Amino acid sequence: MGSTVEDLLAVLPADRVITDQDLLAGHRRDEADLCAAGTPLAMVRPQDTGEVAATVRVAAAHGVPVVPQGARTGLTGAANAVDGALVVSLTGLNRILEIDPAERIAVVQPGVVNAELRRAAAKEGLAYPPDPGSWESSTIGGNVSTDAGGMCCVKYGVTGEYVLGMEVVLADGEILRCGRRTVKGVAGYDLTGLFVGSEGTLGIITEITVRLRPSAQDALTMVAVYPTVAAAGRAVSSITSAGHVPSMLELLDRTHLRAIEAYQPMGLSTDAAAMLLVATDTGDRAAADLALIAECCREAGASELYVADDAVEAQALTSARRLAHPAMERLAAQAFPGGRGGLVVDDVAVPRSRIVDLVTGVEEISARHGVLVGVVGHAGDGNLHPVIVVDLADPSSVDSGRVVFDEIMRLGLDLGGTCTGEHGVGLLKRDWLARELGPVGMRVHRAVKAALDPAGILNPGKVIAPD
Amino acid sequence: MGSTVEDLLAVLPADRVITDQDLLAGHRRDEADLCAAGTPLAMVRPQDTGEVAATVRVAAAHGVPVVPQGARTGLTGAANAVDGALVVSLTGLNRILEIDPAERIAVVQPGVVNAELRRAAAKEGLAYPPDPGSWESSTIGGNVSTDAGGMCCVKYGVTGEYVLGMEVVLADGEILRCGRRTVKGVAGYDLTGLFVGSEGTLGIITEITVRLRPSAQDALTMVAVYPTVAAAGRAVSSITSAGHVPSMLELLDRTHLRAIEAYQPMGLSTDAAAMLLVATDTGDRAAADLALIAECCREAGASELYVADDAVEAQALTSARRLAHPAMERLAAQAFPGGRGGLVVDDVAVPRSRIVDLVTGVEEISARHGVLVGVVGHAGDGNLHPVIVVDLADPSSVDSGRVVFDEIMRLGLDLGGTCTGEHGVGLLKRDWLARELGPVGMRVHRAVKAALDPAGILNPGKVIAPD
Repeated sequence: MGSTVEDLLAVLPADRVITDQDLLAGHRRDEADLCAAGTPLAMVRPQDTGEVAATVRVAAAHGVPVVPQGARTGLTGAANAVDGALVVSLTGLNRILEIDPAERIAVVQPGVVNAELRRAAAKEGLAYPPDPGSWESSTIGGNVSTDAGGMCCVKYGVTGEYVLGMEVVLADGEILRCGRRTVKGVAGYDLTGLFVGSEGTLGIITEITVRLRPSAQDALTMVAVYPTVAAAGRAVSSITSAGHVPSMLELLDRTHLRAIEAYQPMGLSTDAAAMLLVATDTGDRAAADLALIAECCREAGASELYVADDAVEAQALTSARRLAHPAMERLAAQAFPGGRGGLVVDDVAVPRSRIVDLVTGVEEISARHGVLVGVVGHAGDGNLHPVIVVDLADPSSVDSGRVVFDEIMRLGLDLGGTCTGEHGVGLLKRDWLARELGPVGMRVHRAVKAALDPAGILNPGKVIAPD
Repeated sequence: MGSTVEDLLAVLPADRVITDQDLLAGHRRDEADLCAAGTPLAMVRPQDTGEVAATVRVAAAHGVPVVPQGARTGLTGAANAVDGALVVSLTGLNRILEIDPAERIAVVQPGVVNAELRRAAAKEGLAYPPDPGSWESSTIGGNVSTDAGGMCCVKYGVTGEYVLGMEVVLADGEILRCGRRTVKGVAGYDLTGLFVGSEGTLGIITEITVRLRPSAQDALTMVAVYPTVAAAGRAVSSITSAGHVPSMLELLDRTHLRAIEAYQPMGLSTDAAAMLLVATDTGDRAAADLALIAECCREAGASELYVADDAVEAQALTSARRLAHPAMERLAAQAFPGGRGGLVVDDVAVPRSRIVDLVTGVEEISARHGVLVGVVGHAGDGNLHPVIVVDLADPSSVDSGRVVFDEIMRLGLDLGGTCTGEHGVGLLKRDWLARELGPVGMRVHRAVKAALDPAGILNPGKVIAPD
């Protein structure tokens, strides 16, 4: 047995193994500013399942950790390097292997970018609904590994609801196929569901079978503007408890409206405390459905309601919402001249009827600590992203940010919610996961992890904190 | 330490523990005629989670197997007693703990009968869609443990898609709470999904949180009659590949039509080779949607199309379909006067475009072996139930039935399908599960089982065949 790198080079083409320190440095982390990232031993860029398996076998033989990476757009540090690890970039497994219109399924490699799959499905008159904010860059493998959500989920569900089956390289390098291509199937334990959202800690996903839907009809899109965030929250609760099913129901607070308008002016109402972005896509019923929702919005105290004139305008509003993250990144950079502005993006999901309590609670926490917190998110799902603006170069600012983060997490759990609605746990929320699950839940998690990865080489330290 | 029964009596009220041999004999098996059932040591009828946990702790201390049971309407032997086991009947945990209309969730104990939950939800204007054939008697706990399907699943999905969270008594008697009450949530591994469909082999489910839907609108129901089963199959493929979404799409072959008509005359066309039962529930679009589906049915060669005049007639047609199982049981009893007629109910799911190949293949297998096989099922899901009629008192008949069963299973897998679409594995399909999953899949199943039940006391021998 040689060194780990020597043994990799013995089983892989030389160009698959990267040890250049500059290149490695560029692959140390995802987009979670506060999370620690280690220094990897090497990066492997396999081109097929066999090369992934060969890589894992070498890692297993050497007891070297393996950290799978996609586009590294995650927000929890799940893809961050661990000291001495092999970072395995799956972006080379980027082929759409099959789209079957009759069965309405697609089979893809994990490195396929979300938007590519959407475009390929659209050519067949089909839709792959899950649409995380990162959809133009994030990969299906990463989406599946985090069970990513998005704006359409309020009507169409999250990534996991579309995953029928997969191929996974296990911790010993063996290749597992699980799940199915059929609509229904209950053969054995739901291993496919177990790998969904497991953030690379149980295996490395090398192929995914997803179901597709018939293409949605064009959406009608409306904006409702509110003088308080609480009023916008009341509108959301009123819409969902009345049983309306919009195809989008997003909330942006004033901080986000101003950040987006500064980033790319598009006439958003920067004086409003909050804005709801609502769509219905029920074809010839869309206008009537939107009118019912508008009534809920009005009753909750909207100061302005505006329905987009056409698809182009509707698209512009949706695109504005999609600029939230880069716009807030720029806001953070500008907020601390001479410092290093950054974001801590939270991801709380509460029962839908508690949205008002969540947004008013976040406002109170933000004001009490004097820390800027913008709120944006998938209000119709009860899933909001309080975005904490900190100066990463200033330890006291980072400390305040962490305190605010923890208070928001505590609030979410107290409201009957969960510490993560769609971003996952990674490094950022390990402690909160443990509080949410309790000791029995954590024990079962550790048992499952040990069953699939007895040596603990797969993305160690992610999701489950070390004992 | 006393005997197992003495130790049970030390921690449970006396009336919870049954050792009467006649009572035990009545609780040895579910409805799978061909599956072996052992002789239990005792039956425990706990009334709450604490009593379930106390029972499991005693069983664990004595190394005694535990076999959870609901209404024992299963069709795979999953609830069959094992020699020397404690049979734990969950029917005493039968309370609906909560229905929250604003959040559209219900929290129930496992012994709640499916139809009771449906009725309670309906009172709040809500629906719990999963509707297995046994819905008037089967329990939510059993439905969850098998991930039961039903007639509505073609549009509304199977049981697992409605389960948000649960409470589970683990193999050591500890109580796990997993999942959530929120719409979204990705905190840790999807343990809830892992317990769904695990047939009591990983834990005993003692509480379930399910999501509810707004009540569906009244359905329009249509019957299409075909001169061949293959033509009916072609209609199904044509409907689904065109992207139509009926709320019901069931197939009954001539054997079933005649059995039902003999059991309860309702004017079904007993000369037809097959009948499709189709519904749409899209409100003011239902008639137009049904007309498009009718066009598919006509083009595939329907000899007759008939739309129910009103909700009463539609209900009568649906009820006829629901008589399939008892009607076939009577047919089997009458087919072997002097013998003991019984059914082996298969449960194959294939890609929807392969329905024609499945039904013609089953016809060929039936004819070649001279064994009567009726076909019924959820054609719109690609999930059919070939029902094999055998004389349980005649070993050669049983042997022929098994050969036919195996050939149908083989056919299903060869068509890209799964050995079980909704009934589960139990004892009946352990060998076929192993063939479907392959050695790596089985190894992972055994690892997960060992992680959650290291001593192997939970429903041993079910799902996973002994090594």
